[in-house]
Amino acid sequence: MDGAVRAGVPEHGRLPKHYVVKVRLAELCDELGEGAPLPPERELAARFEVSRVTLQKAVRELVIDGRLQTRRGSGTFVAGPKLVQPLALTSYTEGIRSQGLEPGRRLVGLAEQPAGTELAERLRIAEGDPVIHLERVLLADGEPVGLESTYLPAARHPRLLEVLDPEQSLYACLKDRLGVVFARAEEVIETVLATPREALLIGVNPAVPMLLLHRVSYGPAGEPLERVRVMYRGDRFSFSAELRG
Amino acid sequence: MDGAVRAGVPEHGRLPKHYVVKVRLAELCDELGEGAPLPPERELAARFEVSRVTLQKAVRELVIDGRLQTRRGSGTFVAGPKLVQPLALTSYTEGIRSQGLEPGRRLVGLAEQPAGTELAERLRIAEGDPVIHLERVLLADGEPVGLESTYLPAARHPRLLEVLDPEQSLYACLKDRLGVVFARAEEVIETVLATPREALLIGVNPAVPMLLLHRVSYGPAGEPLERVRVMYRGDRFSFSAELRG
Repeated sequence: MDGAVRAGVPEHGRLPKHYVVKVRLAELCDELGEGAPLPPERELAARFEVSRVTLQKAVRELVIDGRLQTRRGSGTFVAGPKLVQPLALTSYTEGIRSQGLEPGRRLVGLAEQPAGTELAERLRIAEGDPVIHLERVLLADGEPVGLESTYLPAARHPRLLEVLDPEQSLYACLKDRLGVVFARAEEVIETVLATPREALLIGVNPAVPMLLLHRVSYGPAGEPLERVRVMYRGDRFSFSAELRG
Repeated sequence: MDGAVRAGVPEHGRLPKHYVVKVRLAELCDELGEGAPLPPERELAARFEVSRVTLQKAVRELVIDGRLQTRRGSGTFVAGPKLVQPLALTSYTEGIRSQGLEPGRRLVGLAEQPAGTELAERLRIAEGDPVIHLERVLLADGEPVGLESTYLPAARHPRLLEVLDPEQSLYACLKDRLGVVFARAEEVIETVLATPREALLIGVNPAVPMLLLHRVSYGPAGEPLERVRVMYRGDRFSFSAELRG
């Protein structure tokens, strides 16, 4: 047993067959390199001397881990490394550009609506006060990678609907065109499963765990500027943070 | 169709049956309250007019999402909210205590070993230089919630093995007993599946996505002090961060 397999061995020493195949397949991914197609299932099952069910389980786990990627109608490929999105008061644009990709957004919905109890509390406005709800699919080089849902108190952003281009950066619009100052933000990150609607919008298998980021941003006087919920593909994204003492 | 179900509806309008059950079960969790046992499967399948296979799929997703918890031999219960671990230069101890739980650690392994190529590079030591490897299961109120694997350059922590109590906080020992100063850290967070060994050590179903945190901490002169890999149960943990402009 080699090092990579041994690292997965439980104390009782029984190792699931699909896990051994998973480790071998991960090594094969390294050899093949990013973007290479995975050899046919039948061939791999024969090579590893396992059933196709076992092979499929190993492939499924590597897809969830982001080592393999399936493209509809064209099979399974070796995926590139996960994108690293910095946890910072910067926009999606800068994070994606810093990795040499072109950011984009596809509008799902833009509407003014009255704030419910919980949202009003978070945004420190009265229940029923108007909020702007902006929902967009996030793209990297044209590929959907996430879903962003932003709620902004309308009274604090009076000219937003006039000047916003919903396919461009919201932060750039708020900062550069409307002079909004972001002083700080509170974020919570967790892993969740997408709802069927979210999975469809992002074009992801609902079994792939997603990274969900909740954010409330505040202005210099401590006034809440927005509440955001961003779901990123867990197989394609990681977050980075720099901590200081 | 009520609001909670509607929020999951894809554009094409076809909603998986198990998802409707999932939303109903989540509402039932709210009614029953934290710690309550879930009614028997047979009864729930009859109530929602679905097969037991459909019901089980909905339950499995709620377990992955951390809304339900299974305890070996005693069935399925409504889970409490996820623990929130701050991303900060503080220890696991403080994060867990701030939520009213008692932190603990169970030693898996403590050994000195030569650094491999990649680890040596990260820790800025020579390949083959001794590193201390400390691996521990993280506990909250006695329950395993994560697995921490720390590599420390032995030459930068010469007295560590003499004074370390591996069931206590490593940071408290380094800071308070050895005078080590942590100036900053770089962290990357992603979601992954546990290996069979990790799943067994943490006592978690291997299908539950985990939150994996990679950290390198640095001293005041920029010298790497440790490299850490912490895996937290994704159904029990979230991370919080405070960002400043």
